[in-house]
Amino acid sequence: MAAASTDERAQKITHVDVAIVGAGTAGLAALREVRDRTDNFVLINAGPYGTTCARVGCMPSKAVIAAANAFHSRVKLEEFGIRGGERLRADIPAVFRRVRSLRDYFVSGVLKATKDLGARNISGRARLDGPTRLIVGERVIQARQIVLVPGSSPIVPEPWRALGDRILTSDALFDQEDLPSRIGVIGLGPLGAEIAQALARLGLEVHGFDGGEQIAGISDEKVAAAAQSNLAEEFAIHLGAEVELAEADGGVEIKWRGGSVNVDKVIAAIGRRPNVDGLGLKTLGVPLDEKGMPEVDPTTMRIGATPIFLVGDANGDKPLLHEAADEGHIAGLNATSEEPIRLSRRTRLSVVFCDPGIAAVGQKAKDLDPETTLIGEASFADQGRARIMQENYGLLRLYAARRDGRLLGAEMAVPVAEHIAHLLALAIGQELTVHDLLRMPFYHPTLEEGLRTALRTIARELPPCGLSDLARCGALGIEALE
Amino acid sequence: MAAASTDERAQKITHVDVAIVGAGTAGLAALREVRDRTDNFVLINAGPYGTTCARVGCMPSKAVIAAANAFHSRVKLEEFGIRGGERLRADIPAVFRRVRSLRDYFVSGVLKATKDLGARNISGRARLDGPTRLIVGERVIQARQIVLVPGSSPIVPEPWRALGDRILTSDALFDQEDLPSRIGVIGLGPLGAEIAQALARLGLEVHGFDGGEQIAGISDEKVAAAAQSNLAEEFAIHLGAEVELAEADGGVEIKWRGGSVNVDKVIAAIGRRPNVDGLGLKTLGVPLDEKGMPEVDPTTMRIGATPIFLVGDANGDKPLLHEAADEGHIAGLNATSEEPIRLSRRTRLSVVFCDPGIAAVGQKAKDLDPETTLIGEASFADQGRARIMQENYGLLRLYAARRDGRLLGAEMAVPVAEHIAHLLALAIGQELTVHDLLRMPFYHPTLEEGLRTALRTIARELPPCGLSDLARCGALGIEALE
Repeated sequence: MAAASTDERAQKITHVDVAIVGAGTAGLAALREVRDRTDNFVLINAGPYGTTCARVGCMPSKAVIAAANAFHSRVKLEEFGIRGGERLRADIPAVFRRVRSLRDYFVSGVLKATKDLGARNISGRARLDGPTRLIVGERVIQARQIVLVPGSSPIVPEPWRALGDRILTSDALFDQEDLPSRIGVIGLGPLGAEIAQALARLGLEVHGFDGGEQIAGISDEKVAAAAQSNLAEEFAIHLGAEVELAEADGGVEIKWRGGSVNVDKVIAAIGRRPNVDGLGLKTLGVPLDEKGMPEVDPTTMRIGATPIFLVGDANGDKPLLHEAADEGHIAGLNATSEEPIRLSRRTRLSVVFCDPGIAAVGQKAKDLDPETTLIGEASFADQGRARIMQENYGLLRLYAARRDGRLLGAEMAVPVAEHIAHLLALAIGQELTVHDLLRMPFYHPTLEEGLRTALRTIARELPPCGLSDLARCGALGIEALE
Repeated sequence: MAAASTDERAQKITHVDVAIVGAGTAGLAALREVRDRTDNFVLINAGPYGTTCARVGCMPSKAVIAAANAFHSRVKLEEFGIRGGERLRADIPAVFRRVRSLRDYFVSGVLKATKDLGARNISGRARLDGPTRLIVGERVIQARQIVLVPGSSPIVPEPWRALGDRILTSDALFDQEDLPSRIGVIGLGPLGAEIAQALARLGLEVHGFDGGEQIAGISDEKVAAAAQSNLAEEFAIHLGAEVELAEADGGVEIKWRGGSVNVDKVIAAIGRRPNVDGLGLKTLGVPLDEKGMPEVDPTTMRIGATPIFLVGDANGDKPLLHEAADEGHIAGLNATSEEPIRLSRRTRLSVVFCDPGIAAVGQKAKDLDPETTLIGEASFADQGRARIMQENYGLLRLYAARRDGRLLGAEMAVPVAEHIAHLLALAIGQELTVHDLLRMPFYHPTLEEGLRTALRTIARELPPCGLSDLARCGALGIEALE
């Protein structure tokens, strides 16, 4: 190697095999693979350590939801024969104290992953200066491979910023000591729908708005309608509503075509933006789209032919924890390998922790060809176990190939959606058919029997598979003698 | 055909293709197949119509459990930040009124299956008189094929009968207007464990006893210990205890080696006996075992080479609703077919609706060879989502073949066991491996992530499958380029 140049001496250049920029979920997943294979790496993180998920995302939101659901279940008590439910009271400061206590516990778990890195752990904001060079304050890092994990931030439109702390994002929500009684939630995607319902269940007056026509990211119109009808029993839902916010009486006036309402605080849940401003992607010499984003190969997470990987929420694709972890893992493997390691991605799965639970698995309704797709449907309104538990509501829609009954996807808004969705994710990943699923046991009485109803509606439209669900069909041949 | 004999004229012989004896779940499943294929059948039922499940089994017990769990969840409220839980009160007469109202609703659904049978529906007790003849009171039914579905009854040892209505079985439990405060539950199998916990959760003082050493039918010692330790926080559990009952102060004294306790009522949950006494199985000319039971082919449900089928709880094998339904279905198909229709049975699945949920899938621990089996384990004591929901307890144990990682079975006592068990039942039925399951998405934060922990403990003991869970392994070959 040539002697260090004047420039290098002046700027304290550090040479590493791999630099990881960002200590979030995807960054830590990359770190795990990188440190297994080289000691010569750095991790550079701007802002607080601890992942988006643990600090301001999945974990604290689930903690609010758990408390909200516990309080809400009082509405079922009288019917069950339990008295006194009307005297229960939600102590919102206490609810949020527990949320923060759990958050701190989960964050402390995450911090363990970086605490023994010593000098390889650099706190600061990094920007690219070409494809192998990072500038962090006074320092220059020269890296053979760079894994970018800058994360994302909640979007707050510029005009709303004047409203100050009357606008909350998920970054600030869980730090509130208390909440006022009237809340607007702008944006009813997964995050907005979850938090709107949870706050309504805690007894707050909630007004939810979304510019689109279907809530919680549901693409199937019928499932969206079922979810909306359930959630609308708990808070006001305005879809297709472009809102304007204005200061009013110490609170906020929300105006939309058709009405206006005054609230005390507004939660901005209109989305998150990748933290790529100032990251220096332009110095890579690769094409960027109109949002300033480069193309990333999802099987290696590499940007084009560069030594740069872009993973996690920051690449704008599948902003979900398990996908971020996979992306970090894939990037970490590739950043330490001479040859590309192409890995296929998992069956798509997303869950919104509302009640009814909302989930999508595999292909979404909007992406399927009606000509070649069979749809099975099950209402849970009269499902046996659901009725026993006073959870008899919701709709599940299942999509299968008309040709061979292979499961393609599902969307649902039903109790225990998260569990049914995992089962279907396994089935879809294994390329199973409706008949394969009908061969499994469905215990009685369970909500999985509702899934069977949907499977059977599809099976009736397929060529018969023997005389019985118990006959093996399709590729395996019919086992029963008939 | 010969002219009717004197005997036939005197006894009003009815000739049918198929006679079904018993209108329970298995009988109705047989009926569905039979009436699709012939009009010339009879259904003969002794005692009340409506299935064991709907009348006195799964459904009313789940209704009691749902109310009990709703009341019990008050113990979590304070920690969630919800005040006033200590003032909730279980109104037991109201709880049981709802149980009966639901029961009647479910029974009414079942009754629809037989209401249009007219004269083909015979109410009475049938006994066999040889392999093609049934005697029902004054009537004689001559049948080409007979499907026997006589059901089962709770066992009450003779000496206990003197205690009169101080002994309750599941036949009488759900008809109680109220319950006294001290309850003994003798037998902590699936039914006993469920009802003991439910009554304890409703605020009664419950003393549970079992002659065996492991509760709720769990065969895995560690899982049994975990379940026992959780349940013992809610009611007294005495295992390995042979009890004697005696009248005492208007109640019952339960004595066992080591102690005695007085209770107001005793629930007998020591098991159910097939209703085969007086059924005339001896007239078939086939061998009967020491319990008086013939051998039944589980793929056709036929007794030997006879035209007789024995299905449902009455055959003493797998007394579960979904198995009874399959058995009736298989018998109904075979009773109307010239050729045998052999159908393979489903992956074994059993669920006990306690909290933690208890489930067994596939092969049980006790049936596996430790030499060739790998065991993966996951405690839910520190599982993230479980902690958020205050459900962080329980143990899951997973069994896989050491040779190739194929899943063989699982036993568990964990929250949402019923859902994880369905997922594993699908996996085992499809002969999937631990690596196949690790390729599915595990959403965050879910309790399915606890299952992944158990899968990973097994994967670490298997030959490596590529660098990543995302690589396809085994029969499919390694997809990743490495």
